[in-house]
Amino acid sequence: MEIRLAESYGFCFGVKRAIKIAEDLKDATTIGPLIHNNEEITRLKNDFNVATTKDFQEFEKNPTKKAVIRTHGIEKQDLEKLKNMDVEIVNATCPYVTNPQNIVQNMSKDGYHIIIFGDEKHPEVKGVKSYSESEVIVVANVDELKNHHIPRKVAIVAQTTKKINEFNKVVAYIVERARETRVFNTICNATFENQDSARELSQDADVMIVIGGKNSSNTKELYNISKINCVDCYHIENETELQKEWFKNKKLCGITAGASTPDWIINKIISKIKEICV
Amino acid sequence: MEIRLAESYGFCFGVKRAIKIAEDLKDATTIGPLIHNNEEITRLKNDFNVATTKDFQEFEKNPTKKAVIRTHGIEKQDLEKLKNMDVEIVNATCPYVTNPQNIVQNMSKDGYHIIIFGDEKHPEVKGVKSYSESEVIVVANVDELKNHHIPRKVAIVAQTTKKINEFNKVVAYIVERARETRVFNTICNATFENQDSARELSQDADVMIVIGGKNSSNTKELYNISKINCVDCYHIENETELQKEWFKNKKLCGITAGASTPDWIINKIISKIKEICV
Repeated sequence: MEIRLAESYGFCFGVKRAIKIAEDLKDATTIGPLIHNNEEITRLKNDFNVATTKDFQEFEKNPTKKAVIRTHGIEKQDLEKLKNMDVEIVNATCPYVTNPQNIVQNMSKDGYHIIIFGDEKHPEVKGVKSYSESEVIVVANVDELKNHHIPRKVAIVAQTTKKINEFNKVVAYIVERARETRVFNTICNATFENQDSARELSQDADVMIVIGGKNSSNTKELYNISKINCVDCYHIENETELQKEWFKNKKLCGITAGASTPDWIINKIISKIKEICV
Repeated sequence: MEIRLAESYGFCFGVKRAIKIAEDLKDATTIGPLIHNNEEITRLKNDFNVATTKDFQEFEKNPTKKAVIRTHGIEKQDLEKLKNMDVEIVNATCPYVTNPQNIVQNMSKDGYHIIIFGDEKHPEVKGVKSYSESEVIVVANVDELKNHHIPRKVAIVAQTTKKINEFNKVVAYIVERARETRVFNTICNATFENQDSARELSQDADVMIVIGGKNSSNTKELYNISKINCVDCYHIENETELQKEWFKNKKLCGITAGASTPDWIINKIISKIKEICV
């Protein structure tokens, strides 16, 4: 049986970069978990002494610590407080998130009303929003816009993980009502690249293994996409869940993984499949 | 029988303004016909000595003349040539057309690639395009965009008479490909206001008279819209076409007119209907 990895899978560029930063730094503390994967958090703790804190204000008690800002970024005012604490700050905010932060800051300075297409409670959106110098409208869909008066001059950015079609619906609604709409397409294609690759691979595979947290929504999405083309499709978190019968009489085993799944977990699973199938 | 005019009909604001300018000026020459209505052109000639020339270079032969620039505007380089001729220039370019001219000029200066959604051969679009300081892409629909590479920084305007839904399709295509899209909604609602009013009135009327040139596309559109709600619908150019039987046993006669139909033609028709129905 051949085992083939999807062309694009697992960690995105920003997450890989943030983990590398934390590893290189050693003995650092990240503000919020660097990634939604407990095994990876444990590995970082064991191998590189990377701790995690929920609240950046903990640094006040121990200013000698090194603080790592995760890919989502943090709110501008929190970053400023942190700077005043005399902590060593290493900013691992994904460049694809720094970009909308800068846009929102500059556009609000230039007198544009800021609209963010995203989830108001998501840390990335909270961070981006905090860079505006004027009031911000955050909407999760076009229907929510209907409660708002649309100003004459609007600048709009999207949360990096949003879908372009939904973004364009929001843009169309604004264009119909505003005089000028400055649209910054800040959507990152990483999630969609993983999905496209899963779609492609599942057409050829006769068994698909989708690796990732059971409550990871992007892993579930990969599973649903793969299932359409390949009925024998399994969503697992680690190698202990693998069953020998899944691979019986199969020619091609496709593998993909959610955005929070580290390569070492994927590699462990591949080794185990090889072992099973001997 | 009651006769009721549509809430919005006939000349738009820009055309009314241009005619007023030509009338006030007297003995002027317009560059291209001020309006697509021969009877109105004749009236302006007879009552205010307003002539029409196809080619602005005719002014060179007679620089003492007064030149009126019509609502569509003219190309920037032509305006400059005209200025060098020492002609008295009165600019009746519709403010809704001057606006995209200015936008295109400023945005191209600021390094944005200009895309115009409109008909490349239309005088308004030719004029707007001429204000760009860099190359311009003109597309009549989203499919035409597929032949073009979409630059990173785009500014887009629309021909004033285009439909917002089609404009948004073009915008969506660009937003998916460009980093920043500056969308200026330069569509004028006048045409659509006439259409909305015709739709509304034709629901109540049991006979509809639609007035305008037989080859005027916006008048034909008013006819098609009215016909949906009111089967007894007639498209006429002048009062000689009216037939008594159209109004037999009718309670409400609705009246609308295309964007090139002057009020005095509409009034003549209303008088004639009243005469017929006595």
